[in-house]
Amino acid sequence: MSDQGKSTDSATLSAIGEARKAGIETVWDRYQAQVPQCGFGETGLCCRHCLQGPCRIDPFGEGARTGVCGADADVMVARGLSRAIAAGAASHGGHAKHLAHTLLKSAKGEAGDYPLKDEAKLRAVAGRIGIKTEGREAREIAVDVAEKALQEFSEKESPLVWAATTVTKGRVETFLKLGVVPQGIDSTVAESMHRTTYGVDADPVNILLGAVKCALADYAACHMATDIADILFGTPQPVVTRANLGVIKSDSVNIALHGHNPLLSDIIVQVAGEQEMNELAVAAGASGGINIVGVCCTGNEVMMRHRIPLATSSVSQETAILTGALDAMVVDYQCIMPALAGAAECYHTQLITTMPIAKIPNALHIGFSEAGARDCAKEIIRAATDAFKKRDPARINIPGISSAAFAGFSTEAILSALSLVDKDDPLKPITDNIASGNIYGVCLFAGCNNVKITQDANYTAMITELVKNNVLILATGCASGAFARHGFMTPEATEKYAGDGLKAVLTAVGQAAGLNGPLPLVLHMGSCVDNSRAADIAVAIADKLGVDLNMLPVVASAPEPVTEKAVAIGTWAVAAGLPTHLGIVPPVLGSRTVTEVLTSTAKELFGGYFIVETDPLKAAEKLLSVLGERRRGLGLGS
Amino acid sequence: MSDQGKSTDSATLSAIGEARKAGIETVWDRYQAQVPQCGFGETGLCCRHCLQGPCRIDPFGEGARTGVCGADADVMVARGLSRAIAAGAASHGGHAKHLAHTLLKSAKGEAGDYPLKDEAKLRAVAGRIGIKTEGREAREIAVDVAEKALQEFSEKESPLVWAATTVTKGRVETFLKLGVVPQGIDSTVAESMHRTTYGVDADPVNILLGAVKCALADYAACHMATDIADILFGTPQPVVTRANLGVIKSDSVNIALHGHNPLLSDIIVQVAGEQEMNELAVAAGASGGINIVGVCCTGNEVMMRHRIPLATSSVSQETAILTGALDAMVVDYQCIMPALAGAAECYHTQLITTMPIAKIPNALHIGFSEAGARDCAKEIIRAATDAFKKRDPARINIPGISSAAFAGFSTEAILSALSLVDKDDPLKPITDNIASGNIYGVCLFAGCNNVKITQDANYTAMITELVKNNVLILATGCASGAFARHGFMTPEATEKYAGDGLKAVLTAVGQAAGLNGPLPLVLHMGSCVDNSRAADIAVAIADKLGVDLNMLPVVASAPEPVTEKAVAIGTWAVAAGLPTHLGIVPPVLGSRTVTEVLTSTAKELFGGYFIVETDPLKAAEKLLSVLGERRRGLGLGS
Repeated sequence: MSDQGKSTDSATLSAIGEARKAGIETVWDRYQAQVPQCGFGETGLCCRHCLQGPCRIDPFGEGARTGVCGADADVMVARGLSRAIAAGAASHGGHAKHLAHTLLKSAKGEAGDYPLKDEAKLRAVAGRIGIKTEGREAREIAVDVAEKALQEFSEKESPLVWAATTVTKGRVETFLKLGVVPQGIDSTVAESMHRTTYGVDADPVNILLGAVKCALADYAACHMATDIADILFGTPQPVVTRANLGVIKSDSVNIALHGHNPLLSDIIVQVAGEQEMNELAVAAGASGGINIVGVCCTGNEVMMRHRIPLATSSVSQETAILTGALDAMVVDYQCIMPALAGAAECYHTQLITTMPIAKIPNALHIGFSEAGARDCAKEIIRAATDAFKKRDPARINIPGISSAAFAGFSTEAILSALSLVDKDDPLKPITDNIASGNIYGVCLFAGCNNVKITQDANYTAMITELVKNNVLILATGCASGAFARHGFMTPEATEKYAGDGLKAVLTAVGQAAGLNGPLPLVLHMGSCVDNSRAADIAVAIADKLGVDLNMLPVVASAPEPVTEKAVAIGTWAVAAGLPTHLGIVPPVLGSRTVTEVLTSTAKELFGGYFIVETDPLKAAEKLLSVLGERRRGLGLGS
Repeated sequence: MSDQGKSTDSATLSAIGEARKAGIETVWDRYQAQVPQCGFGETGLCCRHCLQGPCRIDPFGEGARTGVCGADADVMVARGLSRAIAAGAASHGGHAKHLAHTLLKSAKGEAGDYPLKDEAKLRAVAGRIGIKTEGREAREIAVDVAEKALQEFSEKESPLVWAATTVTKGRVETFLKLGVVPQGIDSTVAESMHRTTYGVDADPVNILLGAVKCALADYAACHMATDIADILFGTPQPVVTRANLGVIKSDSVNIALHGHNPLLSDIIVQVAGEQEMNELAVAAGASGGINIVGVCCTGNEVMMRHRIPLATSSVSQETAILTGALDAMVVDYQCIMPALAGAAECYHTQLITTMPIAKIPNALHIGFSEAGARDCAKEIIRAATDAFKKRDPARINIPGISSAAFAGFSTEAILSALSLVDKDDPLKPITDNIASGNIYGVCLFAGCNNVKITQDANYTAMITELVKNNVLILATGCASGAFARHGFMTPEATEKYAGDGLKAVLTAVGQAAGLNGPLPLVLHMGSCVDNSRAADIAVAIADKLGVDLNMLPVVASAPEPVTEKAVAIGTWAVAAGLPTHLGIVPPVLGSRTVTEVLTSTAKELFGGYFIVETDPLKAAEKLLSVLGERRRGLGLGS
């Protein structure tokens, strides 16, 4: 694989070159070593769910047609997909539960480092989920919210509150009719694991409906995580920062925060800003003091709440270390390549794990607890400063490349900007412009960078095509990492790439918001759990138009997805009624039934369905065509 | 594979011959079509936990050494094992939760078909878990027990009650020290799924400790399932019935109950015994009326509580249909081969699914609900009777083979028999005889039949060797199916195979119990969730001797294991301190670290450890040697 086949980003390519010179292995080398990958696994036709296996089914129909137990290709593929979604839901559930526990401790005065920062959000969430707010102290309300949140994890008689109160009435009816309403997050994960073990569910459609139920539990977990993070750390408002490896500074103690949960990273940012810590860094010889940078979704969390620049994300996470100037990489959980340990060992970088369920051999483990969050943050910063002293200046190679990035367009921030255009009816500028065609439709970009795709190539090709056709772009997670690196999260990009209609809308709102120019081309909504924010926007538009989500000219795309979480998110986007594009073929092609259900039957059941297309231009065309179809369905010009 | 390589059981071999004549595929054919199985999967060196995969590591060190993310062989293998255990715990959890919900409904008067059959057990369980019983109505107590049970599924601040109150104090201390105490069944399953997704836990030992925690959640679920089943359906007492295909009757409407949960099967047995149903069958031409037979663990449940004969189990489940005289196969969940549908289609047999999470295409689905359990049972019996009318007498080929089987040795039944020998100190006859060497040790046989092993060959070879050396045998699940088929669950087998010491003990207790002969050679303790009964016996002996479980001359063996549940059970047996034999190599050999932790480090941590040995005679020798070592540790003769 040529370097040009690895990434479209100059900074990343520079780091890759550095790695080659230094003989350091990166993700692209490891991928090369795996090629060709197993065809059975790629098509989902392998099962290891019992000790009579492993079983495989020949996708060409020449070998075995079923596993030892009699499970056919449909069952095997559906089982595998179901377990991936269960793992995704379990991950978002773990993240959300962690925040809910902290909210409870905060409210009870047991976690002094976690004040209730956003009382308005607390009251809004409480009101939505049926908790009395009038005349009550914030702390009392927070206890109730946290307890209600924790109850969401176990099976109850009623549907998940965080799902039922955040989607349209029409969706709730559809979910009830299809029997896919989850009643507990952890309990639904467990149910998926049970139904996919040896000799339980052998009906592929039933397995898939169970998987949708689990994906909706994932949705509830995501929404809960967003809500509670906002209550504890503040609802994001637009900020301007920078993105790409150039944000790492040669004169500073550079600490990268990587993973997903703001629980520790937000505190590290707070503590790093204090005089004492800065002096420590300066005393160690770092004239620039401490420089915190973000990686992946922890990066998104601190970017939108604290203007922390984003160093890199997803597939290129190792490149932060390859700059030779990263003194510590602090990780919580999810998407943390075990390979970081090997990369860190080639430099002075201190890799620091912090969570009990996510350790890495040879990393320094500094155990996090809410009660001692600030102390933990200080210990981490001290460890980074110690590592800084071991830095080899001769090995510093920071690509001097970064782009401006506007971040933090939470639902509340977007509505607030729109209310400057129409105080009484903030959504009117959106719905009017959708009706007029100035906004042809909305596309939410989410997901990761996958090593199988030249990094960011799908994102950049697709966005260019979509915005030219006046599609409004929302982005979360490592999709925003991709857009930020390439300068798409700026007003300048709006000027350069947006079609006339879209440009007019973004400019009108930007002017009203006092930006003296248009809004950025991409509205950054946060980390990957924050896909729920995009769902909120879609629900608000649907309610305003008096239609269900499956009628809206709104689509989603994960052009370069990696994780099981992405599979779960994609599935709930489909269940929510959104046509959802995947730029990677998921391991389902071994089953005609599963493939048909996902790409076709789902449309009849939910309105949403998967569009699998690896060519980004064709993908953009397909999404535009779908948006046109949706527009015609609403009686709008297409 | 010659037929002799498929099974050691004549009835099964007869059915296999019939299948060949009729051109019907069985599990052994499907296995042949899978051979050679994938070496990566067999060694655990394959990972499909993200869309950058599938990744594989060459076990011979020639190809890739890590997956794309950098996960090495240790991480890959540990992750796979952890997910298998999570699936096992989820399955037992689902089973237990189902029973707990029914207990609650029963106590609240919402499930009239489920009276509280065993009030003594209810009070004993309640007392053990800290619920007040004195002066309270059974129903009130049952509400509290059920609610406490349901709380076990979500994360609490304290350890699982069903684990903490049922093991020795020493075990609780060990588990606390190692951080493996589960605080919720479903929540621990979800935690395992989270920690094994892309980029979370990369420390193989940490992953394995997480897996042990999940296995202990599995233990709690098993124990809960046993407790509540006894409360609702009665604590088993010894019964005599018969086992093997010969229990199917040509003149009757034959209904096989297959799966795991007694919730529906117990009601079917009750309803089938009623005049109305019998008349229906006779009217249809079945002069023998209705004949209920069991398969797998549902078979165990109804065998020990209602003397229902066991037709077959585990790998040979299809043979019940191959008799040509099975009119309905009713399944709940777990271990139900999807292939049953194909076999049933070759005959008149009606395959009936009953649970929402376990459907099979082309089967008749009769949905079960507690509120309408009797109605559901009647509908099932009617469907079986209808199928009977389509039976082709020319195709009936019931092997006239069956053995007597003594079943139902619950902990309570064993203690009650022992109290006839020593009223004041029922355990004394056991501990005294262990001390004297009349009982050299105890071996619990559990698990399945695996198609890779000539059916029952490992069971029969091992038991013969062990009892000759005076090892007391307990059995559960499909291990008892194997022993029952071969006549080992009889007093005659004691006479024939037991060593002198063991024979003397079993005879003394048998005589005291009025059996006019010895106890059977195998004490059948129930279904596979009932492994908790064996744990109870071991805990009672340990407490009596004043030592912890890791000192006892007690071992466990799964000579022919299949399911992820078996992996979970084996792991908690190890954590409980028992040396645990596996007759199948689990998919871990790809990792030296994981293999060492399971077979060696575990001994230091827990006292228990895995002994993997595919040769049954060598396995028996190893277990005898371990028992000798344990005896010497207690200062007893070996």
